Amino acid sequence: MGLQPKNVLITGANRGLGLELVKQFLRLPSPPKTLLATCRSPENAKDLNDLASKHSNVKVLKLDVTQPTAFENFPKLVESFIEGEGLNLLINNAGINIRHGLEEADSESMMETYTTNVIGPLRMVQALLPYIKQAAKSSTDTSLNCNRAAIVNMSSILGSMAENQSGGLYPYRTSKAALNMLTKNMNVDLKSEGILCFCMHPGWVQTDMGGPNAAVVKETSIAGILDVMSKMNGETSDIFIDYNGQSVPW
Amino acid sequence: MGLQPKNVLITGANRGLGLELVKQFLRLPSPPKTLLATCRSPENAKDLNDLASKHSNVKVLKLDVTQPTAFENFPKLVESFIEGEGLNLLINNAGINIRHGLEEADSESMMETYTTNVIGPLRMVQALLPYIKQAAKSSTDTSLNCNRAAIVNMSSILGSMAENQSGGLYPYRTSKAALNMLTKNMNVDLKSEGILCFCMHPGWVQTDMGGPNAAVVKETSIAGILDVMSKMNGETSDIFIDYNGQSVPW
Ligand SMILES: NC(=O)c1ccc[n+]([C@@H]2O[C@H](COP(=O)([O-])OP(=O)(O)OC[C@H]3O[C@@H](n4cnc5c(N)ncnc54)[C@H](OP(=O)(O)O)[C@@H]3O)[C@@H](O)[C@H]2O)c1
Ligand SMILES: NC(=O)c1ccc[n+]([C@@H]2O[C@H](COP(=O)([O-])OP(=O)(O)OC[C@H]3O[C@@H](n4cnc5c(N)ncnc54)[C@H](OP(=O)(O)O)[C@@H]3O)[C@@H](O)[C@H]2O)c1
Repeated sequence: MGLQPKNVLITGANRGLGLELVKQFLRLPSPPKTLLATCRSPENAKDLNDLASKHSNVKVLKLDVTQPTAFENFPKLVESFIEGEGLNLLINNAGINIRHGLEEADSESMMETYTTNVIGPLRMVQALLPYIKQAAKSSTDTSLNCNRAAIVNMSSILGSMAENQSGGLYPYRTSKAALNMLTKNMNVDLKSEGILCFCMHPGWVQTDMGGPNAAVVKETSIAGILDVMSKMNGETSDIFIDYNGQSVPW
Repeated sequence: MGLQPKNVLITGANRGLGLELVKQFLRLPSPPKTLLATCRSPENAKDLNDLASKHSNVKVLKLDVTQPTAFENFPKLVESFIEGEGLNLLINNAGINIRHGLEEADSESMMETYTTNVIGPLRMVQALLPYIKQAAKSSTDTSLNCNRAAIVNMSSILGSMAENQSGGLYPYRTSKAALNMLTKNMNVDLKSEGILCFCMHPGWVQTDMGGPNAAVVKETSIAGILDVMSKMNGETSDIFIDYNGQSVPW
């Protein structure tokens, strides 16, 4: 029946893959009723603000996923937009990559990356779980899918031990491996609540993070990701999927 | 030719698996010339001090792997004991498990566990890499093994995504998945230097961490681990091994 979650939240929505997610969600045959697009600095999020001015379902919310205080009022703010309906889809997209090898990696780069890429998504889920559960419960659907209630974490093939042939990038690789475990844990823990959890590798994509020489353009990556989201259900234990729909080994 | 690394360092050596490692290393046909046993509080490490008083090759060193300042003089101290010979085997055994589920896990428990279980081993390697390289270089052996130069990280099956059927334990599971990536990264990055890196699952063992109902006693776990150490070489890409010598899926 296609991807049509009613209420969606995307982190890091001001540029790169997050912004492209917002764009393509708006072009779905049945776009979200509410699309909460979070970013650290709404005042500088020109492209996102432009989209919001044209699409009344887009709400731009300020959120730095590393700031504990940011989460104090955030759930109530989300609630005010989704008005008792619950949150169907949370996409933890915000992430950083501090390119430190074995010699450069230090406590600071390891911690900052872990805080953003792992603790950030954990906090998001903790803050919004009541609304995601609400979405799962109030659905007439009893299967697991992204229209009913789902958490999707943007991981990376660089978080795959099995695919790691080149080493390096210590803060990023360790954080994405940990994010994969976070995802697997949530997949196990939240299944019985009717919530689907999985993680994705978007490909090596031309964004600020991926750089200009990346193999894939944003449009292709996100089109693939939306296709995967439309198809994922609770029937497979393969929950690390790339933008082409291929399973990535852990 | 059996396990006979000349100079060995073990973290968290005052109790549990670390202490049992020290005991069984001392009982090898060719025990280490120097066995550096580190712990946070040597003043309280009665069993370890008793061993050191009977075995002059055992040196008890104070080290908290989460304290950056602890690493300032530590490499020089290690050097003073191994006297230009290099360090053949580093065993990153120290670890903690703060038992937090999805609701309880917070920034503090996530960070503390990551700092101890992941950044700790990273710092150990950074601090001691010159000596491990020295051991690799000065060896007439050209293959990869634990007698020449190796880094062994004590991981856990709880860090395996593939084996995760029960969820929970967020700080610990994510940290051990990240430690596995750290290990894989070091395996890739240090192979060409003649250094072997792998990680182990010791079984569910009766220690303070494993609890009294655990399935395996320390003696059996560590005997198995020493046997694996004697056999590991650079010829397999399976580098996550349990105490029975079985490969654990990532
Ligand atoms: N591009 C690739 O090739 C690639 C490959 C694999 C995986 N990924 C993953 O895909 C996701 C998106 O990557 P991208 O390529 O779009 O990266 P990007 O162009 O660098 O964008 C990163 C986004 O994350 C946001 N962000 C960073 N730290 C944040 C924080 N503390 N709180 C809130 N937002 C924060 C950034 O906000 P600001 O603008 O405020 O900095 C920005 O919106 C990341 O998780 C990345 O790891 C990307
Ligand atoms: N037991 C099991 O069933 C099991 C299963 C899988 C994996 N493991 C792993 O095996 C390793 C050893 O576990 P165990 O069962 O022997 O645990 P344990 O009995 O709790 O002993 C843990 C050891 O780590 C040390 N330690 C903790 N934090 C430290 C720090 N910041 N700096 C230096 N040392 C620190 C402790 O020192 P203090 O005495 O000062 O606290 C102690 O020596 C751990 O990495 C654990 O994750 C154990």
